[in-house]
Amino acid sequence: MTPRKAPLVGLTAEELRELWPSLSTEERHEAFDHMVSRTEREDFFISLSARYHAELLLEFPPDRRRAWLRLLAPDDVVDLIQEAPPEERETLIGQLDPFAQREVRALLAYAEDDAGGLMSPRYTRVRPDMRADEAISYLRKQARERSGAGHYVYVTDEAQRLLGVLSFRELFAAAPHALVRDIMLTDPVTAKEQDDQEELGRRFAEYDLMAIPVVDDQGRMKGIVTVDDILDVVEEEATEDIQKFGGVQALEEPYLEVGFTGMLRKRAPWLAVLFVGEMLTATAMAYFEAEIAQAVVLALFIPLIISSGGNSGSQASTLVIRAMALGEVSLRDFWRVTRRELATGLALGAILGAVGLVRVAFWGAVFDSYGPHFMLLGLTVAGSLVGVVLFGTLAGSLLPFILRWLNLDPASASAPFVATLVDVAGVVIYFTFAAVLLRGALL
Amino acid sequence: MTPRKAPLVGLTAEELRELWPSLSTEERHEAFDHMVSRTEREDFFISLSARYHAELLLEFPPDRRRAWLRLLAPDDVVDLIQEAPPEERETLIGQLDPFAQREVRALLAYAEDDAGGLMSPRYTRVRPDMRADEAISYLRKQARERSGAGHYVYVTDEAQRLLGVLSFRELFAAAPHALVRDIMLTDPVTAKEQDDQEELGRRFAEYDLMAIPVVDDQGRMKGIVTVDDILDVVEEEATEDIQKFGGVQALEEPYLEVGFTGMLRKRAPWLAVLFVGEMLTATAMAYFEAEIAQAVVLALFIPLIISSGGNSGSQASTLVIRAMALGEVSLRDFWRVTRRELATGLALGAILGAVGLVRVAFWGAVFDSYGPHFMLLGLTVAGSLVGVVLFGTLAGSLLPFILRWLNLDPASASAPFVATLVDVAGVVIYFTFAAVLLRGALL
Repeated sequence: MTPRKAPLVGLTAEELRELWPSLSTEERHEAFDHMVSRTEREDFFISLSARYHAELLLEFPPDRRRAWLRLLAPDDVVDLIQEAPPEERETLIGQLDPFAQREVRALLAYAEDDAGGLMSPRYTRVRPDMRADEAISYLRKQARERSGAGHYVYVTDEAQRLLGVLSFRELFAAAPHALVRDIMLTDPVTAKEQDDQEELGRRFAEYDLMAIPVVDDQGRMKGIVTVDDILDVVEEEATEDIQKFGGVQALEEPYLEVGFTGMLRKRAPWLAVLFVGEMLTATAMAYFEAEIAQAVVLALFIPLIISSGGNSGSQASTLVIRAMALGEVSLRDFWRVTRRELATGLALGAILGAVGLVRVAFWGAVFDSYGPHFMLLGLTVAGSLVGVVLFGTLAGSLLPFILRWLNLDPASASAPFVATLVDVAGVVIYFTFAAVLLRGALL
Repeated sequence: MTPRKAPLVGLTAEELRELWPSLSTEERHEAFDHMVSRTEREDFFISLSARYHAELLLEFPPDRRRAWLRLLAPDDVVDLIQEAPPEERETLIGQLDPFAQREVRALLAYAEDDAGGLMSPRYTRVRPDMRADEAISYLRKQARERSGAGHYVYVTDEAQRLLGVLSFRELFAAAPHALVRDIMLTDPVTAKEQDDQEELGRRFAEYDLMAIPVVDDQGRMKGIVTVDDILDVVEEEATEDIQKFGGVQALEEPYLEVGFTGMLRKRAPWLAVLFVGEMLTATAMAYFEAEIAQAVVLALFIPLIISSGGNSGSQASTLVIRAMALGEVSLRDFWRVTRRELATGLALGAILGAVGLVRVAFWGAVFDSYGPHFMLLGLTVAGSLVGVVLFGTLAGSLLPFILRWLNLDPASASAPFVATLVDVAGVVIYFTFAAVLLRGALL
């Protein structure tokens, strides 16, 4: 790989950040070392994601690692450590000061996808019997030491049980002698350590909060999750869902970072599963070989008909699965969705059927493409389209419910099931219509 | 609709919020009026989205509206007004106090999707020549009046030009006599009023900020966008992308809120466009009618082959489009993506081809399904699969680049183009392989 020295020097931090994913590891190191000032380098380093934190840091000699590692907040150190190879982890933790080591070890005990794995152990706490002006000078002293200010001040008792919360604004606006317990909001929105990050993302979106405190089963405060970390989670979850819709297993790394075999491992299994499912279409069509032999013209419309079923199925399943993910549709809406999709499927099928009829009738009448019985053929195509589109719409909208009932993930399983189901059903529906309408004419 | 009185009373706020999207308008009003306390009702109201703010408020008699409207922050009032019918807007604005009216009118001038349309005009500002302790007591006085505290304090000159920013934490941690200008961070990350919300979302994710100040061309501060508002934007944009991938126009409303005709209008156009595109498969197949008549067995594998192309195309386009949306892949990565997908497509095609060959050979040898030339047929299917999967993979990954070059939205246009292109190409590739391999045997 030819080093691209010239273009990487003299870039602004923003330009470099945009270019970052396309660079090789060596180019990244070179660009990083060439940044103009220490401050710029530090700001840039902090703004990178855990993957790149690990990549840069692990290439540094051990004595250089310490300073960079200590720039990061404990939850970011944890993410970095999770990206590093297992044999490096202890050495990395060893470079933190003893207090941070304890924090990081405590956080490492949580699963990455839990609220516990997202939270920061540094938050601002006061006691309920402080006066507002005491709380403010206490917070000023604390800020000079370790814990961050943030958006909210949490009120805890001696056992660290969460009693209430107040915003800086409320604290500032309070009369100097008012007691914290009288101005705090009791019963705040909280999360448990084991809460799933996706669920947590929904709670942030619903309540428009800047941070949510994480408590254990005894109500003791363990840390806070801030909305900027949740932003990454929401984007990550959306990416996973989109990739599952596309019939790929979630990549978990940026597209360009996934190697050739890694990429195959994410794509080949679903493609093979779909392929094996689709083999049923060949089996189904074998039953109609005699009909095709008698009326070859029937074969011409097979792709058109099954793809229409597939498209309407993918519309319906996309809408329902996304609505489920956003909490707009839940299991109890089954019948309501069924009624809606039944009507929609019939209407969509009628529209496509009408277009199909016109297409066959026009070609048949003007170009004489389909022999003397072209109107019957047109009706067969139109009728099959209504049936296939209706079937696709219903299968696409109801399968997510069934998968949800079975506790399977609708996003990853619906697309392949719907595709196979609809294609096989499309073949059967089409040839059944043909057998009825064309008997005595073409068949 | 039978009123469900009993189950809606006595629910917790959280249960009610979860149920909210499934309720009818009347049920929502009833449930809202039955909440136990004024505080609970207020918290619940504030936590609702603009759509439901408008729905509730517009049903209230005008004298009841004022108090509820004044509960909301100015940017939320703007969102509510944008959800309300045009003839109600002036009346709603008229119920605000004169100061808020000015704020809301200023915000209404921005497009909904711009940074200006997302920002709040209330932020905390100090002067650069204040001392840290002066700034803190100034902020305490301000908090008692109007502007909010938030996460950061912005430093502006007399013309409201943004000079720097500091976090509450930094202000608290500073020596009491330090000047604001000496502790502030100069050159903060900012946004322009016209910046697109999607771009803004990326900036929040990159820099992990809690708020970004919005400035005009003269560097004068206009407001701040906070990350909790961006969370909604990111979720909204992901939903739009997912719906576009599924071949639906972005719904813009929750699934259950879209009426029957609205739903048809979002789904029928794409379905019809795809259908018209797919008609080309019938045209393409008409060229091979003679071959089908001679070897009907060929028809059996058409759905299998074109759907494999479609699936590999949708995998590739999903991955590339999402990577583009996340800024992981840009136009300059064209050749790199081409090389990767060429190799991946060949490997995936070889895998499916091998499975296909085994399937045809086994059925041919064991069940005698395909006559004496079953091995040749198997090779035709296998060769076509390699060709079709390679074509699908390349078309799926490269079309997004072409659409991007043409300044079209890759998310909404790729799926249909790839589907049609790959299906037609699949028919041609399959029958070309058949013509070459089966000449003299089946053809």
